[in-house]
Amino acid sequence: MTRVFELLGKRWTGLIVTVLMTQPAYFAELRRAIPKISERMLTDRLTELVAAGLALREVDAGPPLRVTYRLTESGRALEPALSELARWAERYMAEDEGCP
Amino acid sequence: MTRVFELLGKRWTGLIVTVLMTQPAYFAELRRAIPKISERMLTDRLTELVAAGLALREVDAGPPLRVTYRLTESGRALEPALSELARWAERYMAEDEGCP
Repeated sequence: MTRVFELLGKRWTGLIVTVLMTQPAYFAELRRAIPKISERMLTDRLTELVAAGLALREVDAGPPLRVTYRLTESGRALEPALSELARWAERYMAEDEGCP
Repeated sequence: MTRVFELLGKRWTGLIVTVLMTQPAYFAELRRAIPKISERMLTDRLTELVAAGLALREVDAGPPLRVTYRLTESGRALEPALSELARWAERYMAEDEGCP
């Protein structure tokens, strides 16, 4: 269980998973949904999520070439835990972290 | 929310919180409940939990001198999220990590 905490404990990962929980997204859509994240950081976090089996990377040759990210079943199954933690954070984490 | 993930993402923290979720414990009891953790690591993790407001450190002058750790209200309120994550880990995390 620590591994999932370690993964989700990395900055931005929880937010990326939360965005993908609603629907799959292109890389550019993820960058627009999370304006403060750098391209490099988003690439790294997505690579970690794919390596952990929580997300899938699908390449559409196009043209134009497009890469879509979607959560796997185990990724989507994090939803109850994430919403419990969001509820907890809303109640017990006073100051706005700016990076929910 | 990332901060709570960061905290709980540190090795042993989730397990320490899970042990304290059942009842307050003396330092020695925590060491017995988590045999693989070093004294130094347990001290550091407990200090972080207290600093984050998730646990309390109570000193009983005795003699003998005894230190008890107990979860605060916000610490105990993590229970639903932790049990959801434990359920998720049971289902989706194949190999036994040895440090649940």
